[in-house]
Order: sequence, then structure tokens, then C-alpha cells
Amino acid sequence: VASELERIARLRALYGAPPGDAAIGIGDDAAVLAPDLVLTVDAAVEDVHFRRAWIGRGASWGDFGRRAALAAISDLAAMGAQPRALLSSLIVPPDLDDRAFDAIALGIAEAARACGAPVIGGNLSRGDQVSITTTAVGRAGARVLRRDGARPGDRLWVSGCVGAAALGLAALEAGLGFDPAAAPFVRRFLRPEPRLDLGSRAAAAASAAIDVSDGLVRDLLHLCAASGVGAEIEAAAIPLAEGHDALARRLGRDPLAVALAGGEDYELLLAGPEHPVLRAVATPIGRVVAGPPGVTILDANGAAIALPSAGYDHFSTG
Amino acid sequence: VASELERIARLRALYGAPPGDAAIGIGDDAAVLAPDLVLTVDAAVEDVHFRRAWIGRGASWGDFGRRAALAAISDLAAMGAQPRALLSSLIVPPDLDDRAFDAIALGIAEAARACGAPVIGGNLSRGDQVSITTTAVGRAGARVLRRDGARPGDRLWVSGCVGAAALGLAALEAGLGFDPAAAPFVRRFLRPEPRLDLGSRAAAAASAAIDVSDGLVRDLLHLCAASGVGAEIEAAAIPLAEGHDALARRLGRDPLAVALAGGEDYELLLAGPEHPVLRAVATPIGRVVAGPPGVTILDANGAAIALPSAGYDHFSTG
Repeated sequence: VASELERIARLRALYGAPPGDAAIGIGDDAAVLAPDLVLTVDAAVEDVHFRRAWIGRGASWGDFGRRAALAAISDLAAMGAQPRALLSSLIVPPDLDDRAFDAIALGIAEAARACGAPVIGGNLSRGDQVSITTTAVGRAGARVLRRDGARPGDRLWVSGCVGAAALGLAALEAGLGFDPAAAPFVRRFLRPEPRLDLGSRAAAAASAAIDVSDGLVRDLLHLCAASGVGAEIEAAAIPLAEGHDALARRLGRDPLAVALAGGEDYELLLAGPEHPVLRAVATPIGRVVAGPPGVTILDANGAAIALPSAGYDHFSTG
Repeated sequence: VASELERIARLRALYGAPPGDAAIGIGDDAAVLAPDLVLTVDAAVEDVHFRRAWIGRGASWGDFGRRAALAAISDLAAMGAQPRALLSSLIVPPDLDDRAFDAIALGIAEAARACGAPVIGGNLSRGDQVSITTTAVGRAGARVLRRDGARPGDRLWVSGCVGAAALGLAALEAGLGFDPAAAPFVRRFLRPEPRLDLGSRAAAAASAAIDVSDGLVRDLLHLCAASGVGAEIEAAAIPLAEGHDALARRLGRDPLAVALAGGEDYELLLAGPEHPVLRAVATPIGRVVAGPPGVTILDANGAAIALPSAGYDHFSTG
């Protein structure tokens, strides 16, 4: 069957062009319907994005609900928009107990409150797996941050640290949820912090943005494809959380590969010139270059490193 | 575990009151965020709302996609709003073939085109069951049709026919998808027609409205609960499709029970005074009465009939 990327391209073709009043349709982090109305939807599915087996091992149903809502809100951050309201569609097995159900809803409510975007509607259905689908509605800032504005000569910037959430996920899977060295990473995975303030501030200076949900390289490829440019990343410049290398090795992972391919950090990846605002909120990690969409990783001597992985494809991994 | 209604009440409490600029939050067919912005979300889940076994027996993947989108759009009709755009979140098993995937998307695109609401965004995830979640964004009319405006003395009105979709579903399940007598009912189930024009026109005259998705009695109970009123329905006044009684009996169902409890017709149930607009678009079936929320079914002599079923609870039926 077709890959996720191929399918998204196919959907884009099938659904046609956005209407005249939609500045941005399918293919960015969110859609822009009216000048100030930004809309996005995101789903978290049991056994794909979270597992019941993690409960009691460092995670809870509340974490799954909160995280699902925050992931949708992060798409608004990547557009430089501010959240205004959420719709929440829950699918739950008929035998899911009330405590679990309430915990999921409380987690969503907590995310909603933290981001100033109350849940104003939703839907409830049954199904074999829990799935938590969040529609986030936002108000655009003075300028909308799109994926397609990167130009050769721009620097590439990333907020926070990348790969930490992926290590947290791996630690949860390995039963290390309560391990002191792993706990901060597990927290990064379970409680992402949408970079709303950063997105708003960066919109004045950045030429393009995307949130790091699929993994640094993969999301950079999305940005390159939308902008029609290539990109170079300096491996040594990628910001890593304290303890990243040690935890990665302990989990049998290559530290650089995790930083490049690990998803769900919900940091912002930005393109834009050297600028005090970007310098204040993000770390420069490389540059935009002319050429076909593609990403090159450079070592300390400026030589290309083979990519360990292109990131996470929902349709090609377990 | 709690019933669906109890869970929705619980969600409403957990999520808190809508924000100042949201005229309507959880509990109506859709939420109203800004004066003219109406939002709703609806999910169609495999083996709950549709079955693969029906394919080739009178239904197709395209029908499932189209129907899922139309069900969400119907919520806008029940608010007197006009659709403006859709977001589509798809969950599909990794092995779902490309032809099925494309057919689902084409069905959604067809619904979008028919209702003038292009798909401007979405999400794609994998999961064990296909689920099709649609967020519909609409523009409110001059007046928003709410559930909570019914007053004693109002008449009750319903558009089209009720119970036809439920008979269509039962016919599909029974393998009668291509049966000449059943085919029009199957079509009513697979291709609902959101009453958008009717909702817009009725908004001027009606005091309250809801779409018939869970079943006539059950949706009337929702309306009664929101309005704090009771209701009486005259069994003989309920509009039935031609051939309803015969098909119901052939399928071993009680014709009246199907009309009262059968869901997914996506007709509009309205409360309001005797009025030419309502008379033109709907059939009077009863009246709103003072008293606690509840529905009484009356026979031709005005005597109460025992309710055969309160309708379809997503969490209590197979």
C-alpha cells in the first residue's frame, strides 16, 4: 500500500484546492480558513501513539488525554496562532472503566485550560481501541507561519531539545518510566509543551516553520518539500537534553539517530535569517540551500554523514 | 460503566463552561464560537457505524466516507448554519488497500462538494479499525437554532420520513442491499441528505431543533432535556416512507418501533408554532407540554402507548 506521504499527497489531490477564503489548505501544520481563523485536527490512537501497558509504569490515562490535545495545539504554535477552543472526539471500548474515561477527559481539560482553549464540543463513540481526536481552533497572529517560505540562505533553527521525547517513549517501553535518569525524558514525551509564545514571537522573523512531530529530519523534509529547497544540518549543533547520550546508549540507541529521527518533541523547527528574536528562542542548527528537497547531515569537518533513518512513518513502523 | 448520556454529562462538567465568546458549548448539535462560527465533530467507526461485510452487498467504501462527512454536516443543518469547510481525520489499518483508501476519501470529497464545504485539512493515523472523523465548520444564519428553546404549546415537526435509514441498515445486515423493495431504504441509510436549506429556513420560525441521528424518541428526549419540557407524539402522524411497514415486517421489526427508535435519518426535528415555513418543510407530529423531560406516544384515541425502545445508545447496543 502507499506510504503515509503518498496518501497525504493523494488526499490533497482528491480534496482539491482550498476555497477562495482559505489562505492555506491541506499540507501545512494547520489550515487557515478566514484571515484570523486557523484550524487543525490530530488523533492519538491506542497501540500506535500510546499503550495501556505503560499505565502504572510512569504514565496514566490522564497523560494520554493531555498529550493528545497538546499535540493538536502544537500545530497552532507552528502557524504562529493562539489557541481559542477545542473539539474533542473520543472513541472508547464499551468496557473502558469510568475512572479511565474521566482521567482521559481530565487530561484533555487540563491541556485546554493550560492553553486557554476550552473544549466547546465533541463526540463520543465506541470502538475496539481508544482514540482521542482533537480539533484545535486558533486565532492567527499578525503573520501566519507557513511551511513553504524557506529560502536558500536562511538559517535553520530549532527550539528546545530534540530526541528527548523519543528517548522517553523508549524508556517507557523498556519499563524505565520511574528510572531517575529516564524520568525527565518520559516527562518530555508525556507532557509536551506547545511553543505557542515562541511561535507568536518567531512569526515576525521566520520565513517558515513546522513543529517537530514526526522527527527532525522528516519534518525538515516536509518543510523543504513545501518550500522547494534543500537543507544542511550540522550534527554537532543539534540541541540535546542533558543525559541524552547516556540514556540513548543505555537503551541501545544511537544518540544522533534518535536526535534526527525521534518524533513527538513538539518543538518548532524554523527557517529564517540571523535575527535576535530567533536567536533568543531557538538554536541555529544548519541552513537552507538551493536544490531539490533533501536533507544533508554534516559532521564537524563539513562532511556528509549517512542518514541513520528518515524518521517515523505511521504506515511503515510497528 | 456509565451510559453514553451520563458520560456526555460528565464531559460537560469536566470541560467547564464555554468561553465568553462561545454562545453555545457542549450539549447542542454543534458549538458556536464566534457570532457566526459554528463547529461540530462526528466519528464513524468500523463495526459500529458501518461494516466491511456490507461491501459488495449494496454498499461501498465511498458510501462510508460520504455518509460519515454528511452526518457531521447534518449537525450544522440542525443549528440553521451553512457549511463552510471540513477537516477530515482518518484512522486506517496499515493493510487497507489503496483502492479502499481512495474510495473513502472520494466519498468525503463528494459530500464536501455537494455541500459547498471543501476539505481544508486533516490527519492520517493507523489503527485496527477504520474510523472517519469529520470536523464541520459552518457560518451561522441570522438566528442560531438551539436545542433548548422549546416551550409548552409548541408543535413538534419532523422533516422527511423517519425510520427509513434504520430499515436500510437492517436490510444491509440481512443481505438485502440489492432487493428492489429494500434498495430505497438502503440508499436513505447510505446517502443521508443534510437538511441545510430547511434548517436555514426553519430558523426564522422554530423555537428549537435537533437532527434525528440517534432516533426520533431519543433525539426528542435530548431536546426535551435541554428545554426542560415534555413532549407528546401522535403515532399515526409520524411520516413513514412508502413501503416502510412491509419492509419492517419482512425484516421482523415492528414498524412503529423502527420509526420511533431507528437512528441516522438525519432529518430535522423541530419545535415551533403553527407557521407556514414549518408547514412547508416538515410534518407536525405532536406537541411540547409542560412537565419533566419525557416523551409520550399517543395512539389514534389519544391513549399512551408503551415505548418499544428509547433508541440507540452507542454504549449499550451491539
